[in-house]
Formats: sequence, C-alpha cells, structure tokens
Amino acid sequence: MSATVYLVGIGPGQAELVTPEALKAIGKVSVVIGQPECLLLVEALTRGKEVIAERQSPLGRSRLAVEKAQAGQDVAIISSGDPGVYAIAATFLEYLKDNNITLDVKVVPGVGLAGYAAARLGAPLGNDSAAITLTDQGTPWPVIRKRLEAAASADFVIVIYNPFGKLGPSRLQEALKIIAEYRTAQTLVGVLSKAATPDEQVQITTLGEVNVLALPVDTLLIIGNSQSYARDGRMVTPRLYREGVGY
Amino acid sequence: MSATVYLVGIGPGQAELVTPEALKAIGKVSVVIGQPECLLLVEALTRGKEVIAERQSPLGRSRLAVEKAQAGQDVAIISSGDPGVYAIAATFLEYLKDNNITLDVKVVPGVGLAGYAAARLGAPLGNDSAAITLTDQGTPWPVIRKRLEAAASADFVIVIYNPFGKLGPSRLQEALKIIAEYRTAQTLVGVLSKAATPDEQVQITTLGEVNVLALPVDTLLIIGNSQSYARDGRMVTPRLYREGVGY
Repeated sequence: MSATVYLVGIGPGQAELVTPEALKAIGKVSVVIGQPECLLLVEALTRGKEVIAERQSPLGRSRLAVEKAQAGQDVAIISSGDPGVYAIAATFLEYLKDNNITLDVKVVPGVGLAGYAAARLGAPLGNDSAAITLTDQGTPWPVIRKRLEAAASADFVIVIYNPFGKLGPSRLQEALKIIAEYRTAQTLVGVLSKAATPDEQVQITTLGEVNVLALPVDTLLIIGNSQSYARDGRMVTPRLYREGVGY
Repeated sequence: MSATVYLVGIGPGQAELVTPEALKAIGKVSVVIGQPECLLLVEALTRGKEVIAERQSPLGRSRLAVEKAQAGQDVAIISSGDPGVYAIAATFLEYLKDNNITLDVKVVPGVGLAGYAAARLGAPLGNDSAAITLTDQGTPWPVIRKRLEAAASADFVIVIYNPFGKLGPSRLQEALKIIAEYRTAQTLVGVLSKAATPDEQVQITTLGEVNVLALPVDTLLIIGNSQSYARDGRMVTPRLYREGVGY
C-alpha cells in the first residue's frame, strides 16, 4: 500500500483560477473528498470517481481520506482557496500526527482568498501584512486580541478571515475597535463578500463607516495601513518606491 | 483609446501553476512586459506579440505599459508569484496616481510565493501569520524593526521576503535576532531557496541553527510560531482544532 493523499487548493471558486497542477492531482486519484459546495466546483473533473461530500468537519474529511489511503486508494481532499491558509493542510497533517500515521502527502497550492480579494480591490497587500482569523474555536480570544493589537500598532495591513467566528458580529466589532485604537476613522477597509459567486460584493469603505451588521458571513476584510489610499475605485497600499529603486 | 493593462501573476515559475485566467489575459494583449527571467517562463504564449524585457525597475515597466496603453494597445505586465504581494500591482497603481493617469487595469492573481513555499514545507501557515519584507529601500528600517518585534511578540508565524534586502546578510541576521528575543532557539524555520528552479532547496531548520551566510539571495523564510513542529520532514503550524469543531 503506497497511496498518496493530495491536499488540493482550487482557488476561490472559478474554473479560471484552478491551476493545471490541481487538475492533474484530481485526475490521478480514485477518491475525491470535500465539502459539498467545493465538490460542485470541480464536478466535471470527478465523474467516474468515488466522490464523498463531507460537511461536518476537516477532521472528518481527514479521517475518511486516511481510511481510503490505507486501503490503497489515492485520494484528493479538495479545499477552496489555498489548502495551507486556515484550511485542510494543517488539519490533515495534525490528524496524522495525533494518530501516529505516516502517509505520502502532497500539498497542491492554490490562489488564496486574500490574493483574490486583493486583486479585486486593487493592491491593498502591496506592503507588509498580517493575517488573522477570528474563528476563536482553535485559538483563544486573548491570543487573537494580542495579535490584533500587535498588527494594528506596527502598521501592518490586516487581513481578517472568518470575521464572525462562531459568535456573530460581536468578535468583528471588537476587533475593529482594537484596530481603531491605533488607526484613524479614515483608515480604508476593503471588503470582499461571497467571493467568486454571482452575488460577489466588493466594497471600499473606512474603519469609521464600515457597517458590520450588513456584512454576509462569507466575508474577508482587508484593513489598510496608515499609507493605504483609494483612487478610481481601487484600494492601494504603496511600497514607497523611489525612481531607480527595484524590488 | 480604451486599452487595458493586465497585471498578471504567473505563480512561482512552473507552467503547472499558471492559472487559465493568466493565460487568457496574456492571450488578449498585443504587448507583454516583464523582467527577462519572467518572460522566459511564458515564452510559448508570447509568440507574435511585442515582448519587452525590462530589467531595471517596476517603475520602468509601469511607464512602458502606460505608454503602450495610451497608444491604444492592450498590455500585460507579467509578475512572478502574485502581483499583489510585494510586486507590480501596487507599484503600477501608484505610478498611475503619481502621474494623474486613469486607465482600465485588471489584476490577475496568481499562486503566491508564500503559499508555494508553505505547500513545499508542509503546512507552516496553518495559523495567523505576518508577512514582512526586509527590502528596506521603500520602508524605513525602524518601521520594519517594529513590525518584526510586533509579529514575534504576538506569536505570529512570520514570512520573511527578500531576506537580504540591499545590504546582504546583515538585515536578516538582525531580523532573526529580534525574533529570537521572543522565541526559543528551537523555533522552526522553514527555508525555500531558488523556488521552482532545478536548484530549488527546501530546508527545515531552527532559529538557533539557521545558517544565514549559506543561504542564496533568492530565499523565503517562514519562522514558525510557538506551536509549530516538524514531523516526517514537514513543518506544521496547527490550528488547534478539537473534535466536532469546524472552520
């Protein structure tokens, strides 16, 4: 038995942002596992394969994949965005460790949600940034709070994933309040909601005006640094280059 | 004249990580601009087009693209990785602002270097992370220093881009010293050098043992947080999920 588990990122959702490497990995396996909405996106590629929709948890997907791989079948677990960023890669490898399992694993990177959001907004990630998820089921809230303070005080652009955590808007409201202790009310906030769906919304607003209660659950926020600005409907964080200075 | 400038990310270098959207954007334009090594990667796609190798600076590439677009030609500026992360998108939009130019611009995201490095290393970006470039020609060193301290003290995974800046190894040595004030010598350091070339090197070492002087200039480092561990040759930063807890 030497089956391989592929942890495959398919990007934010459009076929046009799925890489050939992801397609190739899916092509190689006999079993494809993923959340139902993720599997829908690659439906055309999975005909004739065993397809397992697993809605409950990334641990559940990991367990299923290990069972199939240990039975000798190559498996792909499909992840939207990039599997390495708040997604299946860490969870799966952690599952292997916790259960003392060694397997052949390949991580196939994808276009991540932050990169996609940045492209839709303009170029808000042009300078140093911090990524923080408000899903506080894994990381204790005091640790998240400290990270928000550190990122805000050092003038990082801040990407906020899973803004509503499991508690609804209160976490995001608190997070924005922490950031506002270090930034002006005019600080730009880029918002991407329902990425890569027909209902996708892109919005550039400010820390003083962002309406948290009006945001869908499926939202990512990019809080600008002190230099970020908007022009022609785009949010930009400059790199402060001078003539003759390269990367 | 209503030409479009596409800022196109082609990922770390392999054709297998170039998205269909990037190919489509290149297919649409009559002029392709980029650094010579970047243009080589998409050579097969640019036959019959005007191809301009511009080695000097992203501002030079921006100026050329604007000239062509203002003359009515659709243009693509090719960027390795993701154009939004320390790359052409911010520089180009900044150039438009500084010169009071309005143009149709489309940013095409790509698989970024950090996501690629993470996939090659295992899953080091499984929890909150900060991205910092040591290229101190645009951001003053005291600001970078402050960001390193903030990221290290709040237990972010830290991705270090352009570790040698323009000054050689001294900046990276100083950066690692700052981080070591907050982390143990056993803290994991993932290193990716010469990404996506035949000489690519992936290394998992520690803050106490990383040999800065032996690293190639073309290197990205991922410093683990206090929870990161290595197992079976992979570096993992856990998300600390418990059974029954989803994303």
